[in-house]
Amino acid sequence: MSQKYVYFFGKGKAEGRGTQRELLGGKGAGLAEMTNIGLPVPAGFTIAVPACEHYHASGNKWPRGLDKEIRANLTKLERACKKKLGDKKDPLLVSVRSGAARSMPGMMETILNLGLNDASVEGLAAATQNPRFAWDAYRRFLQMYSTVVVGLNKDVLEDKLHAKKEQLGITLDTEIPAEGLRELCDEFKRFFVEQVGQPFPQDPWEQLRGAINAVFSSWHADKAVTYRRVEKIDDIFGTGVNVQQMVFGNMGDDSGTGVCFTRDPSTGENEFYGELLINAQGEDVVAGIRTPLALSELDRKMPEVYAQLEAVRAMLEIHYGEMQDLEFTVERGKLYMLQCRSGKRTATAAFRIAVEQATKPLMSARKAAQLARKRYLPKKYSSAASKPVITKEQAILRITQDDIERLFYPIISAAISRDDLSARHLATGINAVPGAACGKIVFSAADAEAQAENGNAVILVRKETSPEDVGGMQAARGILTQTGGKTSHAAVVARGWGKCCIVGCAALRIDYDARRVNVNGTMLGEGDEITLDGSTGEVYRGALELSRPEPPDSYFVLMKWVDKLRRLRVRTNADSPEDSRKAIEMGAEGIGLCRTEHMFFATHERQLAIQEMIVSESRDERVQALDKLLPFQRDDFLGIFEAMAGRPVTIRLLDPPLHEFVPKTEEQADALSQVTGVPTARILERAEHLHESNPMLGHRGCRLCITYPEILEMQVRAIIEAAVECKRRGVKVLPEIMIPLTIDARELAILTERTRAVANAILKEARVNVPYLVGTMIETPRAAITADAVAQVAEFFSFGTNDLTQMTMGLSRDDAGRFLPDYVDRSKAGIFPDDPFQSLDQAGVGALVRLGIEQGRGSSAQLKVGICGEHGGDPASVIFCHQVGMDYVSCSPLRVPIARLAAAQAAIADVERGGSGGPKRKPAGKATGRRKAVSRSSKAGRKSAKKRTARATTGRQAKIRKQTTRSATVRQAKKNVRARTTKGRTTAKRARR
Amino acid sequence: MSQKYVYFFGKGKAEGRGTQRELLGGKGAGLAEMTNIGLPVPAGFTIAVPACEHYHASGNKWPRGLDKEIRANLTKLERACKKKLGDKKDPLLVSVRSGAARSMPGMMETILNLGLNDASVEGLAAATQNPRFAWDAYRRFLQMYSTVVVGLNKDVLEDKLHAKKEQLGITLDTEIPAEGLRELCDEFKRFFVEQVGQPFPQDPWEQLRGAINAVFSSWHADKAVTYRRVEKIDDIFGTGVNVQQMVFGNMGDDSGTGVCFTRDPSTGENEFYGELLINAQGEDVVAGIRTPLALSELDRKMPEVYAQLEAVRAMLEIHYGEMQDLEFTVERGKLYMLQCRSGKRTATAAFRIAVEQATKPLMSARKAAQLARKRYLPKKYSSAASKPVITKEQAILRITQDDIERLFYPIISAAISRDDLSARHLATGINAVPGAACGKIVFSAADAEAQAENGNAVILVRKETSPEDVGGMQAARGILTQTGGKTSHAAVVARGWGKCCIVGCAALRIDYDARRVNVNGTMLGEGDEITLDGSTGEVYRGALELSRPEPPDSYFVLMKWVDKLRRLRVRTNADSPEDSRKAIEMGAEGIGLCRTEHMFFATHERQLAIQEMIVSESRDERVQALDKLLPFQRDDFLGIFEAMAGRPVTIRLLDPPLHEFVPKTEEQADALSQVTGVPTARILERAEHLHESNPMLGHRGCRLCITYPEILEMQVRAIIEAAVECKRRGVKVLPEIMIPLTIDARELAILTERTRAVANAILKEARVNVPYLVGTMIETPRAAITADAVAQVAEFFSFGTNDLTQMTMGLSRDDAGRFLPDYVDRSKAGIFPDDPFQSLDQAGVGALVRLGIEQGRGSSAQLKVGICGEHGGDPASVIFCHQVGMDYVSCSPLRVPIARLAAAQAAIADVERGGSGGPKRKPAGKATGRRKAVSRSSKAGRKSAKKRTARATTGRQAKIRKQTTRSATVRQAKKNVRARTTKGRTTAKRARR
Repeated sequence: MSQKYVYFFGKGKAEGRGTQRELLGGKGAGLAEMTNIGLPVPAGFTIAVPACEHYHASGNKWPRGLDKEIRANLTKLERACKKKLGDKKDPLLVSVRSGAARSMPGMMETILNLGLNDASVEGLAAATQNPRFAWDAYRRFLQMYSTVVVGLNKDVLEDKLHAKKEQLGITLDTEIPAEGLRELCDEFKRFFVEQVGQPFPQDPWEQLRGAINAVFSSWHADKAVTYRRVEKIDDIFGTGVNVQQMVFGNMGDDSGTGVCFTRDPSTGENEFYGELLINAQGEDVVAGIRTPLALSELDRKMPEVYAQLEAVRAMLEIHYGEMQDLEFTVERGKLYMLQCRSGKRTATAAFRIAVEQATKPLMSARKAAQLARKRYLPKKYSSAASKPVITKEQAILRITQDDIERLFYPIISAAISRDDLSARHLATGINAVPGAACGKIVFSAADAEAQAENGNAVILVRKETSPEDVGGMQAARGILTQTGGKTSHAAVVARGWGKCCIVGCAALRIDYDARRVNVNGTMLGEGDEITLDGSTGEVYRGALELSRPEPPDSYFVLMKWVDKLRRLRVRTNADSPEDSRKAIEMGAEGIGLCRTEHMFFATHERQLAIQEMIVSESRDERVQALDKLLPFQRDDFLGIFEAMAGRPVTIRLLDPPLHEFVPKTEEQADALSQVTGVPTARILERAEHLHESNPMLGHRGCRLCITYPEILEMQVRAIIEAAVECKRRGVKVLPEIMIPLTIDARELAILTERTRAVANAILKEARVNVPYLVGTMIETPRAAITADAVAQVAEFFSFGTNDLTQMTMGLSRDDAGRFLPDYVDRSKAGIFPDDPFQSLDQAGVGALVRLGIEQGRGSSAQLKVGICGEHGGDPASVIFCHQVGMDYVSCSPLRVPIARLAAAQAAIADVERGGSGGPKRKPAGKATGRRKAVSRSSKAGRKSAKKRTARATTGRQAKIRKQTTRSATVRQAKKNVRARTTKGRTTAKRARR
Repeated sequence: MSQKYVYFFGKGKAEGRGTQRELLGGKGAGLAEMTNIGLPVPAGFTIAVPACEHYHASGNKWPRGLDKEIRANLTKLERACKKKLGDKKDPLLVSVRSGAARSMPGMMETILNLGLNDASVEGLAAATQNPRFAWDAYRRFLQMYSTVVVGLNKDVLEDKLHAKKEQLGITLDTEIPAEGLRELCDEFKRFFVEQVGQPFPQDPWEQLRGAINAVFSSWHADKAVTYRRVEKIDDIFGTGVNVQQMVFGNMGDDSGTGVCFTRDPSTGENEFYGELLINAQGEDVVAGIRTPLALSELDRKMPEVYAQLEAVRAMLEIHYGEMQDLEFTVERGKLYMLQCRSGKRTATAAFRIAVEQATKPLMSARKAAQLARKRYLPKKYSSAASKPVITKEQAILRITQDDIERLFYPIISAAISRDDLSARHLATGINAVPGAACGKIVFSAADAEAQAENGNAVILVRKETSPEDVGGMQAARGILTQTGGKTSHAAVVARGWGKCCIVGCAALRIDYDARRVNVNGTMLGEGDEITLDGSTGEVYRGALELSRPEPPDSYFVLMKWVDKLRRLRVRTNADSPEDSRKAIEMGAEGIGLCRTEHMFFATHERQLAIQEMIVSESRDERVQALDKLLPFQRDDFLGIFEAMAGRPVTIRLLDPPLHEFVPKTEEQADALSQVTGVPTARILERAEHLHESNPMLGHRGCRLCITYPEILEMQVRAIIEAAVECKRRGVKVLPEIMIPLTIDARELAILTERTRAVANAILKEARVNVPYLVGTMIETPRAAITADAVAQVAEFFSFGTNDLTQMTMGLSRDDAGRFLPDYVDRSKAGIFPDDPFQSLDQAGVGALVRLGIEQGRGSSAQLKVGICGEHGGDPASVIFCHQVGMDYVSCSPLRVPIARLAAAQAAIADVERGGSGGPKRKPAGKATGRRKAVSRSSKAGRKSAKKRTARATTGRQAKIRKQTTRSATVRQAKKNVRARTTKGRTTAKRARR
């Protein structure tokens, strides 16, 4: 026989398993698993996903053998239920439901009560002694089948139902008597003949085949396709179909149907939470006509059923180790489980559930014993129910980036209705920085600052932003740009602050002169209010209510576990004392990237000084201008050093091309001219001269310091003088001077030498010893390729993966918005799984990073390695950084917790794979995650620091191992490893003889 | 004792050897070698270069032991000459001369007649019985020492000499009688005391020490430093000093001095060529007062000396295997050799000498026998003299890129004096394309075209050029730009045509409106004539006379040898039938890069059509516009295919960002608006929309085809339809479709599939079978890193090393002019040995190329690999391409011979290293340098082509080996290898026992 397509479940045994989501779909896998662990599940069978894939691939044909398999399973089902489909006396009714490997709620079709026809409806009426129930079931089936399977107009049938109720003078469906329902059935069947030209199918097999095909086809229904696109579900290609015996919650007051969660999905409280309707079918719950009861009512009304359900709750949560979302039906006092799946939850609940699952039992021992005594809870579960359900490692693995983000970013209040949102929707851009913001539109940075000073909340709307806009960007509540991608200037700067930002909103047509913007036809002017949802990229008219969640206690508990488990250090990208403090609050252990250039835009005075430097025509003039900047920079560094209180601070020397700083307009040039005495025309000429075709690949980074060493000298002086002042104030300080855009070891050697010369002279004069490091960013492919040579000069590497991605892939992040979406969108070219500026391109850029680290450590084993690109806050990239053996990652303050989490998850994965938690570094003698960096001059200090860390690391790893051994899978894995090792040893012994 | 600094030579034996140029300097090595082979060289010693290096490194101090060594050698010299320095009766006189490892003619100092003082001059007068000679020698020494060693004013001494002659009423130095000279000596000594405050040093040792220090110091004289900078001599750091017994050509009519070349340096003719002065010293030749005689006069006047010199000629040319430049002196009928070195020669001579040395004997057997009979020519040389001096391989190794360039590019006529050139010199830019050009200045491409149509020779002077200027650039004789580097648009385009081009001439201040340019203060207007020397980057006022050398027959002979020896194929970059034909003349074997975009600028009509395509807003509109371009492109390809007559033609699909094509001014937009009906404002809006921050990393290359597949479809259609038409006309055709800027295998797969779909449909409809390949440029680091995957899709790789260099190094070639010079200039940062856009950066970019080839061939052994960046015409890069196992290089037509030569030189080097001529490819089953490419569909054809080539390659290699064994060095190397192998075998055998 060919491939197996159909999997039976029933009578306590299922052919499938819970792990077979890909094969059976989520619902099918859940039903199989519940059956296998002995829960009361109505019997049925699942038609596996490959059948659906074949159906679509072959032009709507069933695969060979499917027909036969379904017939055989149907017979098996009839035998299990002791009823026959279409039986005239006591017919079997089945539901036909979709179920894909990933949840797509309500997107595909369901047909209930299948098996009814003109004959069997009478049998059902007789067997249940409830004609109204039977005719209502038939009415529902006719209606569903006609619309879902055959595609008749839904509204016409609804109208007929409505007309019947009007005719009878009643309002509720449940009030229609049996006779009325029978008449409705006749009307529905007449309509069917009129429309289809054939009578309603009476053959249950024909009904079943039609229903299965309808479910198959619904995979390609518009709403399903749209849902998958929106949710980025692009790795599954069909649905399973579940054919299952119907059970009825609408068979009287001893029946009912409900939905429940094993814990409260909104608070995470350990409480059995749910709702039910007595005497109702599932679709009645959906219809929302009757108000459901709290789950506790079930305890009052049917205590035994409730106790049974409590046992089910315990069994499923223990079995899956996860909070479950359950559907059940009670038919005449008998409980049936219809679905189980991991339950969706709020961010707060996610943390509380994870922490409580790992530290507290699900229920009291007394309660568990009580359920066990009633035989509802098998022994195996009753002992587990009074212990923590999962390990701390599992708790950590359960938390996602989204959970953390949702904890910190403001959101549009849940109180605002979907309809209201739709009505206010203006456009969609690229969701650059999550969180929501609202305010009045301004079109310039200056206006933003002015308005903000007046206490107005403003949204800065620009075609794009540039470094000059930084003040206004900071003043604004949110930023919206027409162009750019997730790593455009606006996005990068805003992300650093965690400020809501939407970029690349192509629908904007901004008219700066008229101070207005046309958004998809809606004209908005300065002062008009809008709301941005940075998490989704949506732009709304008006100021919507926002709310900002507070992190719960369980967040802090879990993050403490995280910090104990991870090997990778997490630093932050911060340019100011405020950002530094914020980052420390978020758990940062140092600054991995302090960009000095942002400081130049902080005030008009500084801006003029840097501009003066740039228009200088001689070294002397430049030095004079730089001298004006020196005190500003020194104060900035002092503030940051004090805020970081001895944590390492990596300061990058000036990086952007000079033209970014020069006056662009004649007005600005005039202002500069008045200060410097340089004629306006010359200033403009100089500005034009600085224009570059490809500034990204131009005169920037350390190239500036090769050309103008005095820039480096001023910056190093500011850093070291600030450090000296710190020392004097008794504040520990650990500067790491970082030279950007290196392409060659010799280039770096020249600049490192200059740096040390300046620094050491200051220290000597001040008679102070400040340890400092000099290292480089690895952000050009050439630096990575020649890393062995570069590492002989650099004391640390920091991978600047933004630029490294740009150069390795030949992608300008400012311009990629025009075509990169096509590259990432699966429905178009679908060349990359993710935006490579968001999640590190591991095959390409990652290969260079790996090469760079291997070569760098090969020639300098002590080399400290980190990452300071945007990727340092992306979980997948953080895991990669752990795997390639970096010492730290650095990211914007708000992403620090995300990085900490991912680092711990990576360490756990290592241990589970049998690694050491730091797999890419050789075990002994390597400094991993040193807390203390030391200057070249103090080798002894460095060695002892290394030892300390090595000890700390080893201790931490041992702890992980100890904690992890609790997990069953790990225990098994260790067993296997031990078995293999023993065997290996024996073989070796034998060989030696 | 410490390091040895002094090397003696004399009496037929020298401590040094001719190969020790680095140690002894060129002159010292030559003297040692001539001494060793038994030539009559006055005895002396060489103070080695490290002594000079030490002198400068230690603040003008001699290294320890040097003093002692010199004294010891001086004693040895005195013994050898049987005279003593400063002797009162018959004093030894010495010359003290500089001599660095690389020739720096006239740049450093020389002191002659050292050892004379008030006492020894009398001795000399007595010993020579020639008081006039003695006092003249003393006069010369006083004059030289005072100016060179002590630094007194040259002019004052010259004035005194002049005054003396006036006083005596004579005009020539030689007419001054002994007494007059003695008086002059007194005057010089008096002047010395006046100026220095001490008498002229009488101690010969003090004289010698002073002279040696003067030579050391002259290494840092301004003119020497300048010379080294200009000549890019940056790998040597001092000079040797040669102290040698004086011989005198001014001792009567049986004495004389001369310079000769072993062959004619201007024609290359095999003829002993030189000049001499009877009764004169070397400096008299330089003074140029007397007209020298032709060398043949020596035969008439001193036949035995001449015969001796002929023997020297033969010995040195045979010994060195190279044409030599000799200096000799005859003292009283005795020949002394004072210098030998490889002789400079014209390009024509270079080829003729190389070919004749490899094919014809230096002299007839009769002549050789005659010289041997006279014992002038030792036996070993007399037999060699009647055979070819070198092998063909050696002949090939001798030719340089410069030799070829000088053959083809026009040059400023040698008739123009240096003074004239200096007076006309305006500015210096970057020498982008060699050759000279002169014409009237124009400031716009349009003017260039208009003026050229009127028959005017014009030079296009622009700030920079853009693709729109191409027409005007072609019309101009030469191009001069203010900005840009060697791979800026202007340089690249001009190089393709071999058109004289100077870029980055920063001294220009162009005022387009006023149509004038200020060049270092000189104001030139439209129509003013200038001359460019593209070989040096110099700009001159006025139209200088130019000359264009014709390649001599020997060029064609040598290039035939080259083609037989090389493994690497050489293709050309050509975009038109004319260029294609020119390239074939230059020896191209195919087109490696046909850029399709240049075609779009050929006429206004085409320009409008591409612009129409770009401003289109829908696919249909775009297709309509593309349909207009189709016939143009098809015709272009047809012309190229016909010109290439069956040779492979690699056509790159559209590469540059679209904004390069759009109208920039309102005027241009208006014109387009009239054709397309699209409003001007929309056109300008679209143009602005297309603007990119970093176009190099933007929406270009195959990204355009991902976004607009219809562009690819049109271009593939044009290619294949042209190929079909060729087939119909009976012309063989071999198109290779190249997809640019690939970053991922999947991206390439999508486009390759589309390409094949279009191509195969056309072929099917036409019922014609045209083999074609589809491959890609490897020009992003990511493509190289993921080459294993890319090679599973591509049928060939062509490394686009221009862009690969830009991205790997993060260098925009358009902007690098601002800082890259500092990186390459040794006197500044000196980070790279060469401009990486000119000569491949082997450590960085080269590593990626190597990786790409290894990975690519690893997953697709048949992969054809070439290079089409500018580096394909750079000899060092071509050798690299050979070494990494590429199949071909491609370069602009005029560089094709240079690439052919370099490829042969690489193959020869391989064989000399014991390799196979194609070392990086595994020997069997790999297709190297296939002449025939075949489409995937015809595997059989491909296989047989492979076999053919494999056979051809093996045969060729065998031939190289056979030819090479003739060389003595190789014979020795082989012996060594054999010895080592035998030894290894024996050792292994012993071990086994």
